[in-house]
Amino acid sequence: MGKYVISFDLGGTNVRCGVLDLKGKILAREKIATGERPDPKELAGRMAGIADVCLGQLGRKRKDVAAVGIGSPGPLNSMTGIISQTPNLGWKNVPLAKLVHNAIKLPTFLENDANSALWGEYWKGVGVGKKTMFIFTLGTGVGGSLILDGKLWRGPDDTAGHLGHMVVDPDGPTQVFDNPGSVEALCSATACIRDARAAALAHPESLLAKVPAEQITGAFVDECAEKGDPYAREIFRRIGYHLGIVCASLANALNPELGIFAGGLARAGDKIMEPLRKECFRRTLLVPGKRMKIVLGKLGDDAGMIGAAGLALERLRGKA
Amino acid sequence: MGKYVISFDLGGTNVRCGVLDLKGKILAREKIATGERPDPKELAGRMAGIADVCLGQLGRKRKDVAAVGIGSPGPLNSMTGIISQTPNLGWKNVPLAKLVHNAIKLPTFLENDANSALWGEYWKGVGVGKKTMFIFTLGTGVGGSLILDGKLWRGPDDTAGHLGHMVVDPDGPTQVFDNPGSVEALCSATACIRDARAAALAHPESLLAKVPAEQITGAFVDECAEKGDPYAREIFRRIGYHLGIVCASLANALNPELGIFAGGLARAGDKIMEPLRKECFRRTLLVPGKRMKIVLGKLGDDAGMIGAAGLALERLRGKA
Repeated sequence: MGKYVISFDLGGTNVRCGVLDLKGKILAREKIATGERPDPKELAGRMAGIADVCLGQLGRKRKDVAAVGIGSPGPLNSMTGIISQTPNLGWKNVPLAKLVHNAIKLPTFLENDANSALWGEYWKGVGVGKKTMFIFTLGTGVGGSLILDGKLWRGPDDTAGHLGHMVVDPDGPTQVFDNPGSVEALCSATACIRDARAAALAHPESLLAKVPAEQITGAFVDECAEKGDPYAREIFRRIGYHLGIVCASLANALNPELGIFAGGLARAGDKIMEPLRKECFRRTLLVPGKRMKIVLGKLGDDAGMIGAAGLALERLRGKA
Repeated sequence: MGKYVISFDLGGTNVRCGVLDLKGKILAREKIATGERPDPKELAGRMAGIADVCLGQLGRKRKDVAAVGIGSPGPLNSMTGIISQTPNLGWKNVPLAKLVHNAIKLPTFLENDANSALWGEYWKGVGVGKKTMFIFTLGTGVGGSLILDGKLWRGPDDTAGHLGHMVVDPDGPTQVFDNPGSVEALCSATACIRDARAAALAHPESLLAKVPAEQITGAFVDECAEKGDPYAREIFRRIGYHLGIVCASLANALNPELGIFAGGLARAGDKIMEPLRKECFRRTLLVPGKRMKIVLGKLGDDAGMIGAAGLALERLRGKA
């Protein structure tokens, strides 16, 4: 078996490529702009191209590579390798695994981004040494994934792990589809920006009101909170409070060892994590509450690339 | 291996005993009164006694028996066989599996009642042919249990499956411990009675107000609802609505094939199940929503006895 694995992290802005050793260490990396509504076949060709560049930096060839992993936003089917829809790329029913396989002539495996990120943290990050954990990736939406006893829990249709669509407050706001008060509707960057714009309107004295509403981003809310703005801090406290509730539900239902938080909004750190832990452990039963730790991911943007590589190797071996 | 299995369903009022064949068919059964705050050793002796009576009815002896299963309210540790606490029996840290083993001299396995009930339905009831499912047992409290890909999901501490302590409405009422708006606080028989008493006070015209408050039971609320009382019907609708929310969360998180409802309150049937399904499938993602069926258990009071027998056999074989 080849001693390397190629991994791609496909995003709306960039495609990041890495060559890793079989232990998950990134040895070379490159990125290219995804481009607007890219042609899938052409993009697959460009992906093969940057993979060759990465291999060249290491003095290696494709024959030294065991497998190729791709982490991608979904919804997608990891078994067929087809991306059913990615609004960011304007794609529908794209057989990306096959297209990349055709371009690169190596076993190629597609995974959704949250599964990739969790597997990365499990294999090489905060999850090392533990076997049962979940992740929430706090971005424009909220992704989720579950590892139970060392295995990715996919469910019978490979659609398990949508923790962002668990319900926290049935009377809460709606986002994307008719599931009011879901984690995504309350705790995504989109929700954060929505609440910050409302706060800026209601409280002109807030730092949040110092820029035009359309310039408010998650990073800006964080900046205001760092400067002590009480309205910005309250937005993060509410996000933590709501995440704490769903973590308690998961603790009582699944008895996990670890709950991991990642994604852009997780950069707010303790401003979210403190109220999160407080609300969560208030609501957990004694034993599962004692077992579960709530932590930030530690691989940052590399979690997805490392995890997609690891899952490709698992699947090559007939696991995961 | 013996061709029979003895199973006990331990309750606050009765201990029910059955002798089953290895396929889960109940061949003989007896019950005895549990008695108030029974001495554990003495009760174990009585349990051995009725097991012998059941065996006698079949012309069989203890040597024909492969294993003994006990389904019991918890919290308990199924691995050590110790019941840490049962308020109903006034017990603390009772090694019941060992005591029964000493009395009966056969391999003896203890399980909590919700796990037993779900395993029963999985093995011989509505779950036959499916592999991933959950149960809610709606009684004084709300028990829960999960089977994932044909295995009871216990979690690292054997405390997974407490679905009754998942949160449905964070601003809801509190029951037992500081976890407001849990399924148990909103959907147990206790919650049903609490809400019926409040409705009787607020609406003297309701059928619920025709008996003294302390005589209101779950069965009485059901009776009033059957007679068309709108307040009684609304109580069941709210229970269904709240159960639907937690089912949607479980569907989106775990992609199960089946959600099962059992226990005394489930006798209200469609008065709970219709609003339950309506709220649930509104909130599920397309694929997991299509996959999951929401059903009533079909083994009734026998689910626990059958399941405890089945789990004892699984554990005897080193599984579950």
